[in-house]
Amino acid sequence: MNVILIHPHEWGSKASQGTLTLNDHRFVHIASVIQPKSGDQLRVGLIGGQLGMATVSQIDNQSITLDVTLDTPPPPPLPVTLLLALPRPKVLRRTLQACATLGVKQIYLINSYRVEKSYWQTPFLEADALRETLLSGLEQGRDTLMPDVHLRKRFKPFVEDELPQLTEGKQAWTAHPMPESVPCPGNITAPSLLAIGPEGGFITYEVDKLAEAGFQTISLGPRILKVETALPALLSKLFL
Amino acid sequence: MNVILIHPHEWGSKASQGTLTLNDHRFVHIASVIQPKSGDQLRVGLIGGQLGMATVSQIDNQSITLDVTLDTPPPPPLPVTLLLALPRPKVLRRTLQACATLGVKQIYLINSYRVEKSYWQTPFLEADALRETLLSGLEQGRDTLMPDVHLRKRFKPFVEDELPQLTEGKQAWTAHPMPESVPCPGNITAPSLLAIGPEGGFITYEVDKLAEAGFQTISLGPRILKVETALPALLSKLFL
Repeated sequence: MNVILIHPHEWGSKASQGTLTLNDHRFVHIASVIQPKSGDQLRVGLIGGQLGMATVSQIDNQSITLDVTLDTPPPPPLPVTLLLALPRPKVLRRTLQACATLGVKQIYLINSYRVEKSYWQTPFLEADALRETLLSGLEQGRDTLMPDVHLRKRFKPFVEDELPQLTEGKQAWTAHPMPESVPCPGNITAPSLLAIGPEGGFITYEVDKLAEAGFQTISLGPRILKVETALPALLSKLFL
Repeated sequence: MNVILIHPHEWGSKASQGTLTLNDHRFVHIASVIQPKSGDQLRVGLIGGQLGMATVSQIDNQSITLDVTLDTPPPPPLPVTLLLALPRPKVLRRTLQACATLGVKQIYLINSYRVEKSYWQTPFLEADALRETLLSGLEQGRDTLMPDVHLRKRFKPFVEDELPQLTEGKQAWTAHPMPESVPCPGNITAPSLLAIGPEGGFITYEVDKLAEAGFQTISLGPRILKVETALPALLSKLFL
Protein backbone atom coordinates (compact mmCIF):
# COMPACT_ATOMS: atom_id res chain seq x y z
CA MET A 1 0.00 0.00 0.00
CA ASN A 2 1.98 2.97 -1.32
CA VAL A 3 -0.97 5.32 -1.04
CA ILE A 4 -4.04 5.32 1.21
CA LEU A 5 -7.08 5.59 -1.03
CA ILE A 6 -10.15 7.51 0.15
CA HIS A 7 -13.60 6.65 -1.20
CA PRO A 8 -15.69 9.49 -2.64
CA HIS A 9 -18.58 8.72 -0.23
CA GLU A 10 -16.17 9.22 2.70
CA TRP A 11 -14.86 12.47 1.30
CA GLY A 12 -18.31 13.81 0.52
CA SER A 13 -18.47 17.37 -0.69
CA LYS A 14 -15.11 18.46 0.75
CA ALA A 15 -12.88 20.26 -1.75
CA SER A 16 -9.08 19.90 -1.58
CA GLN A 17 -8.83 19.84 2.21
CA GLY A 18 -10.58 18.01 4.97
CA THR A 19 -10.37 15.76 8.00
CA LEU A 20 -11.00 12.02 7.87
CA THR A 21 -11.10 9.24 10.47
CA LEU A 22 -10.33 5.66 9.41
CA ASN A 23 -11.01 2.50 11.43
CA ASP A 24 -11.15 -0.24 8.77
CA HIS A 25 -8.48 -2.35 7.03
CA ARG A 26 -6.64 0.84 6.06
CA PHE A 27 -6.32 1.78 9.73
CA VAL A 28 -5.08 -1.75 10.51
CA HIS A 29 -2.47 -1.51 7.73
CA ILE A 30 -1.33 1.96 8.77
CA ALA A 31 -1.14 1.05 12.46
CA SER A 32 0.65 -2.28 11.95
CA VAL A 33 2.94 -1.56 8.99
CA ILE A 34 3.58 2.19 8.84
CA GLN A 35 3.19 2.80 12.60
CA PRO A 36 3.04 6.59 12.35
CA LYS A 37 3.02 9.03 15.25
CA SER A 38 0.86 12.10 15.58
CA GLY A 39 2.26 14.73 13.19
CA ASP A 40 3.67 12.22 10.67
CA GLN A 41 2.71 12.51 7.03
CA LEU A 42 1.13 9.80 4.85
CA ARG A 43 0.44 9.68 1.13
CA VAL A 44 -3.25 9.72 0.30
CA GLY A 45 -5.46 9.89 -2.77
CA LEU A 46 -9.15 10.31 -3.52
CA ILE A 47 -10.46 7.52 -5.76
CA GLY A 48 -11.22 9.22 -9.05
CA GLY A 49 -9.54 12.41 -7.86
CA GLN A 50 -6.29 13.97 -6.72
CA LEU A 51 -3.33 12.66 -4.75
CA GLY A 52 -1.97 14.45 -1.71
CA MET A 53 -0.58 14.20 1.80
CA ALA A 54 -2.26 13.65 5.14
CA THR A 55 -0.97 14.67 8.54
CA VAL A 56 -1.79 12.32 11.40
CA SER A 57 -3.72 14.42 13.93
CA GLN A 58 -4.67 11.53 16.22
CA ILE A 59 -4.00 7.78 16.38
CA ASP A 60 -4.98 5.24 19.02
CA ASN A 61 -5.75 1.52 18.98
CA GLN A 62 -9.20 2.09 17.40
CA SER A 63 -8.75 4.63 14.64
CA ILE A 64 -6.60 7.24 12.97
CA THR A 65 -7.59 10.82 12.15
CA LEU A 66 -5.95 12.55 9.22
CA ASP A 67 -5.78 16.16 8.04
CA VAL A 68 -5.84 15.65 4.30
CA THR A 69 -4.72 17.95 1.50
CA LEU A 70 -5.33 16.80 -2.09
CA ASP A 71 -3.33 18.86 -4.58
CA THR A 72 -1.55 16.60 -7.07
CA PRO A 73 -2.97 14.93 -10.17
CA PRO A 74 -2.55 11.13 -10.41
CA PRO A 75 0.14 9.83 -12.79
CA PRO A 76 -0.88 9.88 -16.45
CA PRO A 77 -2.66 6.73 -17.68
CA LEU A 78 -1.12 4.57 -20.41
CA PRO A 79 -2.71 5.43 -23.78
CA VAL A 80 -3.86 1.86 -24.30
CA THR A 81 -7.01 -0.21 -24.45
CA LEU A 82 -6.07 -3.75 -23.47
CA LEU A 83 -7.71 -6.87 -24.91
CA LEU A 84 -6.73 -9.75 -22.67
CA ALA A 85 -7.78 -13.34 -23.27
CA LEU A 86 -9.21 -14.34 -19.88
CA PRO A 87 -6.38 -16.00 -17.90
CA ARG A 88 -6.92 -18.64 -15.24
CA PRO A 89 -8.17 -17.10 -11.98
CA LYS A 90 -4.90 -16.74 -10.06
CA VAL A 91 -3.15 -15.24 -13.05
CA LEU A 92 -6.17 -13.04 -13.75
CA ARG A 93 -5.92 -11.52 -10.31
CA ARG A 94 -2.18 -10.78 -10.53
CA THR A 95 -2.55 -9.51 -14.10
CA LEU A 96 -5.41 -7.14 -13.30
CA GLN A 97 -3.46 -5.79 -10.32
CA ALA A 98 -0.48 -5.21 -12.61
CA CYS A 99 -2.74 -3.45 -15.14
CA ALA A 100 -4.02 -1.10 -12.46
CA THR A 101 -0.49 -0.50 -11.14
CA LEU A 102 0.91 0.23 -14.60
CA GLY A 103 -1.90 2.64 -15.52
CA VAL A 104 -4.10 0.69 -17.96
CA LYS A 105 -7.61 2.19 -17.79
CA GLN A 106 -9.60 0.18 -20.36
CA ILE A 107 -9.45 -3.60 -20.07
CA TYR A 108 -11.51 -5.99 -22.19
CA LEU A 109 -11.36 -9.55 -20.87
CA ILE A 110 -12.17 -11.56 -23.97
CA ASN A 111 -12.83 -15.15 -24.85
CA SER A 112 -10.48 -17.19 -27.02
CA TYR A 113 -10.36 -20.80 -28.18
CA ARG A 114 -7.75 -21.63 -25.57
CA VAL A 115 -9.62 -19.97 -22.66
CA GLU A 116 -11.17 -22.70 -20.53
CA LYS A 117 -14.91 -22.12 -20.16
CA SER A 118 -14.68 -22.62 -16.39
CA TYR A 119 -12.50 -19.50 -16.07
CA TRP A 120 -15.58 -17.35 -16.69
CA GLN A 121 -17.11 -18.75 -13.47
CA THR A 122 -14.39 -17.48 -11.14
CA PRO A 123 -15.54 -15.32 -8.21
CA PHE A 124 -12.64 -12.96 -9.05
CA LEU A 125 -14.83 -11.65 -11.89
CA GLU A 126 -17.64 -10.55 -9.55
CA ALA A 127 -17.93 -6.78 -9.24
CA ASP A 128 -16.76 -6.50 -5.62
CA ALA A 129 -13.80 -8.82 -6.13
CA LEU A 130 -12.76 -7.03 -9.33
CA ARG A 131 -12.94 -3.71 -7.55
CA GLU A 132 -10.84 -4.95 -4.65
CA THR A 133 -8.22 -6.37 -7.02
CA LEU A 134 -8.02 -3.14 -9.00
CA LEU A 135 -7.85 -1.01 -5.84
CA SER A 136 -4.89 -3.02 -4.57
CA GLY A 137 -3.19 -2.39 -7.93
CA LEU A 138 -3.86 1.35 -7.66
CA GLU A 139 -2.56 1.39 -4.07
CA GLN A 140 0.64 -0.25 -5.32
CA GLY A 141 1.08 2.18 -8.22
CA ARG A 142 0.01 5.35 -6.36
CA ASP A 143 -2.87 6.03 -8.71
CA THR A 144 -6.46 7.04 -8.05
CA LEU A 145 -8.20 6.35 -11.38
CA MET A 146 -10.07 3.03 -11.44
CA PRO A 147 -9.73 1.00 -14.64
CA ASP A 148 -12.89 -0.08 -16.44
CA VAL A 149 -13.09 -3.84 -16.93
CA HIS A 150 -15.39 -5.15 -19.67
CA LEU A 151 -16.24 -8.85 -19.96
CA ARG A 152 -16.74 -10.19 -23.49
CA LYS A 153 -17.55 -13.87 -23.42
CA ARG A 154 -17.91 -14.27 -27.18
CA PHE A 155 -14.91 -13.57 -29.39
CA LYS A 156 -16.51 -13.22 -32.81
CA PRO A 157 -19.30 -10.74 -31.99
CA PHE A 158 -16.83 -8.65 -30.01
CA VAL A 159 -14.28 -8.53 -32.81
CA GLU A 160 -16.79 -8.03 -35.61
CA ASP A 161 -19.35 -5.72 -34.01
CA GLU A 162 -17.58 -3.79 -31.25
CA LEU A 163 -13.88 -3.68 -32.14
CA PRO A 164 -14.21 -1.50 -35.29
CA GLN A 165 -15.42 1.41 -33.14
CA LEU A 166 -12.75 0.85 -30.51
CA THR A 167 -9.93 0.85 -33.08
CA GLU A 168 -11.09 3.90 -35.02
CA GLY A 169 -8.12 6.21 -35.54
CA LYS A 170 -5.86 4.09 -33.31
CA GLN A 171 -2.88 1.81 -33.74
CA ALA A 172 -3.58 -1.78 -32.76
CA TRP A 173 -1.29 -4.71 -32.09
CA THR A 174 -1.61 -8.40 -31.33
CA ALA A 175 1.24 -9.74 -29.19
CA HIS A 176 2.23 -12.88 -31.06
CA PRO A 177 5.69 -14.40 -30.57
CA MET A 178 6.05 -15.75 -34.11
CA PRO A 179 8.83 -15.14 -36.66
CA GLU A 180 6.42 -13.32 -39.00
CA SER A 181 5.63 -10.69 -36.35
CA VAL A 182 7.40 -7.33 -36.41
CA PRO A 183 9.50 -6.28 -33.42
CA CYS A 184 7.50 -4.56 -30.69
CA PRO A 185 7.80 -0.79 -31.21
CA GLY A 186 8.65 1.69 -28.44
CA ASN A 187 8.00 5.24 -27.26
CA ILE A 188 4.34 5.10 -28.30
CA THR A 189 2.28 8.05 -27.07
CA ALA A 190 -0.74 7.82 -29.41
CA PRO A 191 -3.94 6.01 -28.36
CA SER A 192 -3.50 2.32 -29.06
CA LEU A 193 -4.95 -1.14 -28.58
CA LEU A 194 -3.00 -4.19 -27.49
CA ALA A 195 -4.32 -7.76 -27.64
CA ILE A 196 -2.66 -10.44 -25.50
CA GLY A 197 -3.64 -14.06 -26.00
CA PRO A 198 -4.08 -16.91 -23.53
CA GLU A 199 -1.40 -19.40 -22.46
CA GLY A 200 -0.72 -21.25 -25.72
CA GLY A 201 -1.55 -18.13 -27.74
CA PHE A 202 -4.39 -17.02 -29.96
CA ILE A 203 -5.27 -19.58 -32.65
CA THR A 204 -4.70 -18.61 -36.29
CA TYR A 205 -8.39 -17.84 -36.82
CA GLU A 206 -8.27 -15.33 -33.98
CA VAL A 207 -5.03 -13.70 -35.14
CA ASP A 208 -6.60 -13.39 -38.60
CA LYS A 209 -9.82 -11.88 -37.26
CA LEU A 210 -7.80 -9.34 -35.26
CA ALA A 211 -5.71 -8.62 -38.38
CA GLU A 212 -8.94 -7.93 -40.31
CA ALA A 213 -9.80 -5.44 -37.57
CA GLY A 214 -6.45 -3.70 -38.16
CA PHE A 215 -4.24 -5.40 -35.57
CA GLN A 216 -0.59 -5.90 -36.55
CA THR A 217 1.26 -8.83 -34.94
CA ILE A 218 4.25 -7.79 -32.83
CA SER A 219 6.80 -9.77 -30.87
CA LEU A 220 9.39 -9.23 -28.14
CA GLY A 221 11.58 -11.99 -29.60
CA PRO A 222 11.70 -15.76 -29.78
CA ARG A 223 11.01 -16.42 -26.10
CA ILE A 224 7.49 -17.46 -25.09
CA LEU A 225 6.43 -15.45 -22.03
CA LYS A 226 3.74 -16.21 -19.49
CA VAL A 227 0.86 -13.72 -19.59
CA GLU A 228 1.92 -12.15 -16.30
CA THR A 229 5.45 -11.62 -17.67
CA ALA A 230 4.36 -10.57 -21.16
CA LEU A 231 1.99 -7.89 -19.89
CA PRO A 232 4.53 -5.66 -18.08
CA ALA A 233 7.18 -6.43 -20.70
CA LEU A 234 4.92 -5.28 -23.56
CA LEU A 235 3.46 -2.25 -21.78
CA SER A 236 6.90 -1.09 -20.70
CA LYS A 237 8.48 -1.52 -24.13
CA LEU A 238 5.55 0.15 -25.91
CA PHE A 239 4.70 3.05 -23.62
CA LEU A 240 7.32 3.71 -20.88
CA MET B 1 6.32 -26.49 -21.16
CA ASN B 2 7.15 -25.00 -24.57
CA VAL B 3 10.21 -27.21 -25.04
CA ILE B 4 11.10 -30.64 -23.64
CA LEU B 5 14.51 -30.33 -22.02
CA ILE B 6 16.95 -33.24 -22.11
CA HIS B 7 19.60 -33.64 -19.43
CA PRO B 8 23.22 -34.07 -20.56
CA HIS B 9 23.51 -37.39 -18.65
CA GLU B 10 20.56 -38.76 -20.63
CA TRP B 11 22.02 -37.62 -23.93
CA GLY B 12 25.48 -38.96 -23.14
CA SER B 13 28.00 -38.76 -25.94
CA LYS B 14 25.50 -38.52 -28.78
CA ALA B 15 26.19 -35.68 -31.21
CA SER B 16 23.32 -33.85 -32.94
CA GLN B 17 21.08 -36.90 -33.44
CA GLY B 18 19.89 -39.71 -31.25
CA THR B 19 17.01 -41.68 -29.78
CA LEU B 20 15.67 -41.12 -26.31
CA THR B 21 12.96 -42.76 -24.18
CA LEU B 22 11.22 -40.74 -21.46
CA ASN B 23 9.03 -42.12 -18.68
CA ASP B 24 9.19 -39.40 -16.02
CA HIS B 25 7.24 -36.16 -15.45
CA ARG B 26 8.08 -35.07 -19.00
CA PHE B 27 6.36 -38.19 -20.36
CA VAL B 28 3.35 -37.48 -18.13
CA HIS B 29 3.16 -33.89 -19.41
CA ILE B 30 3.54 -34.92 -23.05
CA ALA B 31 1.00 -37.74 -22.78
CA SER B 32 -1.60 -35.75 -20.86
CA VAL B 33 -1.25 -32.26 -22.34
CA ILE B 34 0.26 -32.57 -25.83
CA GLN B 35 -1.18 -36.06 -26.54
CA PRO B 36 0.94 -36.70 -29.64
CA LYS B 37 0.63 -39.66 -32.01
CA SER B 38 3.47 -41.66 -33.47
CA GLY B 39 5.09 -39.50 -36.17
CA ASP B 40 4.23 -36.17 -34.53
CA GLN B 41 6.98 -33.67 -33.87
CA LEU B 42 7.87 -32.04 -30.54
CA ARG B 43 10.25 -29.24 -29.66
CA VAL B 44 13.24 -30.38 -27.64
CA GLY B 45 16.47 -28.95 -26.29
CA LEU B 46 19.61 -30.24 -24.63
CA ILE B 47 20.31 -28.44 -21.35
CA GLY B 48 23.44 -26.40 -22.02
CA GLY B 49 23.23 -27.24 -25.74
CA GLN B 50 21.17 -26.89 -28.89
CA LEU B 51 17.43 -26.81 -29.54
CA GLY B 52 15.79 -29.05 -32.11
CA MET B 53 12.84 -31.25 -33.01
CA ALA B 54 11.96 -34.79 -32.00
CA THR B 55 9.76 -37.21 -33.92
CA VAL B 56 7.62 -39.53 -31.81
CA SER B 57 8.64 -43.05 -32.82
CA GLN B 58 6.62 -44.82 -30.12
CA ILE B 59 4.20 -43.85 -27.34
CA ASP B 60 2.21 -46.05 -24.96
CA ASN B 61 0.92 -45.61 -21.42
CA GLN B 62 4.38 -46.14 -19.91
CA SER B 63 6.82 -44.13 -21.99
CA ILE B 64 7.54 -42.18 -25.15
CA THR B 65 10.44 -42.74 -27.55
CA LEU B 66 11.75 -39.81 -29.56
CA ASP B 67 14.06 -39.49 -32.57
CA VAL B 68 15.84 -36.30 -31.71
CA THR B 69 17.71 -33.84 -33.94
CA LEU B 70 19.46 -30.89 -32.27
CA ASP B 71 20.44 -28.24 -34.78
CA THR B 72 19.41 -24.77 -33.56
CA PRO B 73 21.20 -22.52 -31.07
CA PRO B 74 19.16 -21.33 -28.09
CA PRO B 75 17.93 -17.70 -28.14
CA PRO B 76 20.60 -15.14 -27.25
CA PRO B 77 20.90 -14.32 -23.54
CA LEU B 78 20.22 -10.83 -22.24
CA PRO B 79 23.52 -8.96 -21.76
CA VAL B 80 22.79 -8.35 -18.09
CA THR B 81 24.00 -9.36 -14.67
CA LEU B 82 21.07 -8.98 -12.30
CA LEU B 83 21.41 -7.94 -8.66
CA LEU B 84 18.11 -8.73 -6.99
CA ALA B 85 17.35 -8.00 -3.34
CA LEU B 86 16.04 -11.35 -2.09
CA PRO B 87 12.23 -11.26 -2.39
CA ARG B 88 9.85 -13.21 -0.17
CA PRO B 89 9.76 -16.89 -1.15
CA LYS B 90 6.68 -16.98 -3.39
CA VAL B 91 7.80 -13.88 -5.26
CA LEU B 92 11.35 -15.27 -5.44
CA ARG B 93 10.12 -18.36 -7.22
CA ARG B 94 8.05 -16.47 -9.80
CA THR B 95 10.80 -13.91 -10.30
CA LEU B 96 13.54 -16.50 -10.86
CA GLN B 97 11.29 -18.31 -13.35
CA ALA B 98 10.75 -15.02 -15.18
CA CYS B 99 14.52 -14.39 -15.19
CA ALA B 100 15.14 -17.78 -16.79
CA THR B 101 12.33 -17.25 -19.29
CA LEU B 102 13.58 -13.79 -20.27
CA GLY B 103 17.20 -14.93 -20.72
CA VAL B 104 19.02 -13.56 -17.67
CA LYS B 105 22.08 -15.77 -17.08
CA GLN B 106 23.81 -14.17 -14.07
CA ILE B 107 21.67 -13.56 -11.00
CA TYR B 108 23.01 -12.30 -7.67
CA LEU B 109 20.44 -12.59 -4.89
CA ILE B 110 21.63 -9.97 -2.43
CA ASN B 111 20.75 -8.79 1.02
CA SER B 112 19.28 -5.38 1.73
CA TYR B 113 18.02 -3.58 4.83
CA ARG B 114 14.40 -4.32 3.87
CA VAL B 115 14.98 -8.04 3.15
CA GLU B 116 13.56 -10.04 6.06
CA LYS B 117 16.21 -12.34 7.49
CA SER B 118 13.81 -15.30 7.39
CA TYR B 119 13.70 -15.14 3.58
CA TRP B 120 17.21 -16.59 3.46
CA GLN B 121 15.87 -19.77 5.11
CA THR B 122 13.40 -20.64 2.36
CA PRO B 123 13.71 -24.13 0.86
CA PHE B 124 13.35 -22.47 -2.58
CA LEU B 125 17.02 -21.45 -2.24
CA GLU B 126 18.24 -25.04 -1.92
CA ALA B 127 20.15 -26.23 -4.97
CA ASP B 128 17.58 -28.75 -6.21
CA ALA B 129 14.66 -26.36 -5.76
CA LEU B 130 16.53 -23.53 -7.48
CA ARG B 131 17.35 -25.80 -10.39
CA GLU B 132 13.75 -26.94 -10.76
CA THR B 133 12.51 -23.34 -10.69
CA LEU B 134 15.03 -22.25 -13.30
CA LEU B 135 14.31 -25.28 -15.52
CA SER B 136 10.60 -24.44 -15.54
CA GLY B 137 11.54 -20.93 -16.62
CA LEU B 138 13.72 -22.25 -19.44
CA GLU B 139 10.94 -24.63 -20.54
CA GLN B 140 8.59 -21.63 -20.72
CA GLY B 141 11.05 -19.50 -22.71
CA ARG B 142 12.38 -22.26 -25.00
CA ASP B 143 15.91 -21.85 -23.80
CA THR B 144 18.56 -24.41 -22.81
CA LEU B 145 21.16 -22.33 -20.96
CA MET B 146 20.83 -22.51 -17.17
CA PRO B 147 21.27 -19.23 -15.29
CA ASP B 148 23.85 -19.05 -12.51
CA VAL B 149 22.38 -17.97 -9.19
CA HIS B 150 24.75 -16.54 -6.59
CA LEU B 151 23.65 -15.94 -2.99
CA ARG B 152 25.19 -12.94 -1.22
CA LYS B 153 23.88 -12.63 2.30
CA ARG B 154 25.92 -9.57 3.21
CA PHE B 155 25.38 -6.36 1.27
CA LYS B 156 28.46 -4.35 2.19
CA PRO B 157 31.18 -6.95 1.49
CA PHE B 158 29.47 -7.83 -1.79
CA VAL B 159 29.26 -4.22 -2.94
CA GLU B 160 32.73 -3.23 -1.73
CA ASP B 161 34.77 -6.33 -2.50
CA GLU B 162 33.08 -8.17 -5.35
CA LEU B 163 31.07 -5.60 -7.29
CA PRO B 164 34.04 -3.58 -8.64
CA GLN B 165 35.19 -6.61 -10.67
CA LEU B 166 31.67 -7.36 -11.90
CA THR B 167 31.10 -3.80 -13.11
CA GLU B 168 34.45 -3.38 -14.85
CA GLY B 169 33.83 -1.94 -18.33
CA LYS B 170 30.07 -2.25 -17.97
CA GLN B 171 27.11 0.08 -17.57
CA ALA B 172 25.27 -0.34 -14.30
CA TRP B 173 21.88 0.85 -13.12
CA THR B 174 19.85 0.82 -9.93
CA ALA B 175 16.11 0.73 -10.53
CA HIS B 176 14.85 3.46 -8.21
CA PRO B 177 11.46 5.10 -8.81
CA MET B 178 12.42 8.52 -7.50
CA PRO B 179 12.18 11.93 -9.21
CA GLU B 180 15.97 12.33 -9.21
CA SER B 181 16.43 9.14 -11.29
CA VAL B 182 16.93 9.37 -15.06
CA PRO B 183 14.42 7.69 -17.37
CA CYS B 184 15.19 4.03 -18.04
CA PRO B 185 17.16 3.83 -21.32
CA GLY B 186 16.34 1.41 -24.16
CA ASN B 187 17.94 -0.67 -26.93
CA ILE B 188 20.91 -1.59 -24.75
CA THR B 189 23.14 -4.26 -26.25
CA ALA B 190 26.34 -3.76 -24.22
CA PRO B 191 27.07 -5.84 -21.11
CA SER B 192 25.30 -4.27 -18.16
CA LEU B 193 24.32 -4.67 -14.56
CA LEU B 194 20.89 -3.98 -13.14
CA ALA B 195 20.08 -3.77 -9.41
CA ILE B 196 16.48 -4.18 -8.27
CA GLY B 197 15.62 -3.51 -4.64
CA PRO B 198 13.17 -5.17 -2.26
CA GLU B 199 9.51 -4.22 -1.72
CA GLY B 200 9.86 -0.77 -0.17
CA GLY B 201 13.06 -0.12 -2.13
CA PHE B 202 16.74 0.10 -1.33
CA ILE B 203 17.49 2.46 1.55
CA THR B 204 19.52 5.61 0.83
CA TYR B 205 22.72 4.04 2.19
CA GLU B 206 22.38 1.17 -0.29
CA VAL B 207 21.59 3.44 -3.24
CA ASP B 208 24.64 5.49 -2.32
CA LYS B 209 26.90 2.42 -2.02
CA LEU B 210 25.72 1.24 -5.43
CA ALA B 211 26.31 4.75 -6.82
CA GLU B 212 29.89 4.62 -5.47
CA ALA B 213 30.28 1.37 -7.41
CA GLY B 214 29.17 3.16 -10.59
CA PHE B 215 25.41 2.47 -10.59
CA GLN B 216 23.18 5.20 -12.02
CA THR B 217 19.60 5.39 -10.70
CA ILE B 218 16.95 4.88 -13.38
CA SER B 219 13.17 4.91 -13.28
CA LEU B 220 10.22 3.81 -15.39
CA GLY B 221 8.13 6.70 -14.08
CA PRO B 222 6.26 7.70 -10.95
CA ARG B 223 4.44 4.40 -10.41
CA ILE B 224 5.79 2.01 -7.78
CA LEU B 225 5.90 -1.51 -9.23
CA LYS B 226 6.01 -4.83 -7.44
CA VAL B 227 9.28 -6.71 -8.00
CA GLU B 228 7.58 -9.27 -10.23
CA THR B 229 6.18 -6.46 -12.40
CA ALA B 230 9.29 -4.29 -12.33
CA LEU B 231 11.58 -7.11 -13.46
CA PRO B 232 9.99 -7.84 -16.88
CA ALA B 233 9.18 -4.14 -17.36
CA LEU B 234 12.82 -3.10 -16.82
CA LEU B 235 14.39 -5.96 -18.78
CA SER B 236 12.04 -5.39 -21.69
CA LYS B 237 12.57 -1.63 -21.81
CA LEU B 238 16.36 -1.95 -21.48
CA PHE B 239 17.15 -4.91 -23.71
CA LEU B 240 14.23 -6.04 -25.94
